[in-house]
Amino acid sequence: MITFLTDFGIKDHYVASMKGVILSINPRCTIIDISHEVHPHDIGEGAFLLANAYSFFPKGTIHLAVVDPGVGGSRKSILVTTSDFFFLGPDNGLFTFALQKEKVKHVVALTNRKYFLSEISATFHGRDVFAPVAGYLSLGVKPKDFGNEINSWSRITFQKPRIENGKLVGEVFHIDSFGNLISNIGEKEFFIFSKRRSLKIRIGRHLISCLKKRYGEGKIDEPIALIGSGGFLEISVRDASAQKLLKAKKGDKIEIQMSGSLRAKKTIT
Amino acid sequence: MITFLTDFGIKDHYVASMKGVILSINPRCTIIDISHEVHPHDIGEGAFLLANAYSFFPKGTIHLAVVDPGVGGSRKSILVTTSDFFFLGPDNGLFTFALQKEKVKHVVALTNRKYFLSEISATFHGRDVFAPVAGYLSLGVKPKDFGNEINSWSRITFQKPRIENGKLVGEVFHIDSFGNLISNIGEKEFFIFSKRRSLKIRIGRHLISCLKKRYGEGKIDEPIALIGSGGFLEISVRDASAQKLLKAKKGDKIEIQMSGSLRAKKTIT
Amino acid sequence: MITFLTDFGIKDHYVASMKGVILSINPRCTIIDISHEVHPHDIGEGAFLLANAYSFFPKGTIHLAVVDPGVGGSRKSILVTTSDFFFLGPDNGLFTFALQKEKVKHVVALTNRKYFLSEISATFHGRDVFAPVAGYLSLGVKPKDFGNEINSWSRITFQKPRIENGKLVGEVFHIDSFGNLISNIGEKEFFIFSKRRSLKIRIGRHLISCLKKRYGEGKIDEPIALIGSGGFLEISVRDASAQKLLKAKKGDKIEIQMSGSLRAKKTIT
Repeated sequence: MITFLTDFGIKDHYVASMKGVILSINPRCTIIDISHEVHPHDIGEGAFLLANAYSFFPKGTIHLAVVDPGVGGSRKSILVTTSDFFFLGPDNGLFTFALQKEKVKHVVALTNRKYFLSEISATFHGRDVFAPVAGYLSLGVKPKDFGNEINSWSRITFQKPRIENGKLVGEVFHIDSFGNLISNIGEKEFFIFSKRRSLKIRIGRHLISCLKKRYGEGKIDEPIALIGSGGFLEISVRDASAQKLLKAKKGDKIEIQMSGSLRAKKTIT
Repeated sequence: MITFLTDFGIKDHYVASMKGVILSINPRCTIIDISHEVHPHDIGEGAFLLANAYSFFPKGTIHLAVVDPGVGGSRKSILVTTSDFFFLGPDNGLFTFALQKEKVKHVVALTNRKYFLSEISATFHGRDVFAPVAGYLSLGVKPKDFGNEINSWSRITFQKPRIENGKLVGEVFHIDSFGNLISNIGEKEFFIFSKRRSLKIRIGRHLISCLKKRYGEGKIDEPIALIGSGGFLEISVRDASAQKLLKAKKGDKIEIQMSGSLRAKKTIT
Repeated sequence: MITFLTDFGIKDHYVASMKGVILSINPRCTIIDISHEVHPHDIGEGAFLLANAYSFFPKGTIHLAVVDPGVGGSRKSILVTTSDFFFLGPDNGLFTFALQKEKVKHVVALTNRKYFLSEISATFHGRDVFAPVAGYLSLGVKPKDFGNEINSWSRITFQKPRIENGKLVGEVFHIDSFGNLISNIGEKEFFIFSKRRSLKIRIGRHLISCLKKRYGEGKIDEPIALIGSGGFLEISVRDASAQKLLKAKKGDKIEIQMSGSLRAKKTIT
């Protein structure tokens, strides 16, 4: 089984060309799309979506991901083998968040042209390198047959939540298609900070005064906070888009502080 | 075989996470997307799309549908068994139109946690409840093993066409991606009313004077009416979008009256 | 194996209905989407996308394509058998570019109603004619069982690149979701014209002075030219959309001339 994530969009022929190459090598392969609507060149977004989905697939699944602004350049092409999965794609940080949760066994740089298409374009390694390698890997070719083992792989740097003046400060990391604002503040960090004391969550000019459990709990047009299904603090509005109501965007700051220490004026817009 | 309809969009990881859960339970399962582009929380649209597609699938198909604004609240999770199919999703009316055409054998409220994921979030029952149940059902687990039989299920209320002052009055119920305006006026109701007499169809300021057979029959920029492939009266414009040309939206009134009784001024805009 | 291309969009139930019909006939069939986001009625775009993807699939693949503004009218429904593939859809030019590269063995007009759905709408031959024929073809029914052999099929006419005043003149033929401008100038024509001499490429008010190999080679905000993965001259901007930066659209002229003969003023906007 192969999962498939790219920033190619679904309008063009790119995704289908890659699937054709895989299926020409292994017609019995099952290919499941994770997303092809990653914003063009947005490695961080691709890494986030992959990290949220990959672990629900069966052991042995090959996770093929191509968000590849450096295609044709000096970045390596890698195959990472973990205890449970394979990760295949450009070495540009796309696997950062998934590999944080995995036990990496070894990493191979793809160099064995025997498993590539015979002509390799400088612009579409997805089709010419990654797709055929995915196909052969699904047939049982051993990872080390695709190239030499290497000792490291690229990670993207990203803003982690931090404590500032007694506040836990994070940011909007992803906005889903419902308009939910998913932060970089994990459930664990949140509860270690809050110790289940009373607190306030601030985003922009909005203050949210407690954590709800589910989307339907808020009032109409009232932003609420909850721990979402991916384990991150999330800002949401009942039956509506928090993104639109709060005019929020990726990177917007989210601050959490104890209620007692609060001097902010509550503003409803 | 499982069909799959949600309002999750195709950008995010939600659809893939659910597929991963299903395939982890039954790797041989075929999953076919109906749509994931239902407008967020639009149960009526989900119900319409499902009702138009479900019957073309093989007998025994599991129709998994998750448009679920009340997730985590008091709404039930149900599995409906009909003579030919299974319908699985939240009990909020999503199966209203499909079940009008089906012979329901029994309905079960999902309560047996043995078939759920071990941790159930309050925000994503699609992944934690419905996906694993779909997986086990596809493996042959009996419907009644998932919970207790119940006697009723939710239906959405919606505006049916009605006779007013000698006119048949309906509305735009769905607008497809070509911009065709699909009404809630069924073929049968239409012909019972018209008795194949000469008639006029009014939408907004536009009058359409007869029923065509196919999209290509109209003139450029001329709205036409026909019975669409789903069996409903439809307003269309040749090689163009009726939605744009007529500035139409869902819920717009469509009136049908006999030509003889007509006092309207014909307006072309 | 069946590939599937339409202009139906992914919001509606049309694509799923067709898949249901195919899988009801042959549940073991693998169906791979090429694109359903062809602009409504844009046969040329459908032909381009199909031609770029079809050849990567295994021999014997059935390529089902439905961009069909003339549905229900006089256009034929055809099944084209080539040495390696089947092409199935309306006879309106949709196979123009793919069949240029294929050795056609025979063409059949679909007339045998035994292989259609029992009721055929005038608006959705995709579901009522093409889907069931695809299903039966995938089961091994012989092409000539679907209808009579015919001697010709439709081609779309389109602007080919031409030499004008010593310049090679082409146009933007497709814009992909990255905003890359893909021209109708093939690699071979380009190099025959340029003979690897120094040249300038003009699009709108922009001049590009040499051919790069890969997307990452340009500077920020600098349009570059390269031969794309489909073998056509392509205008691109590093980590950005050439469409937006150059305010380009389909049909925009692209001119190539020798550097020595150049009298144009270089303009950066």
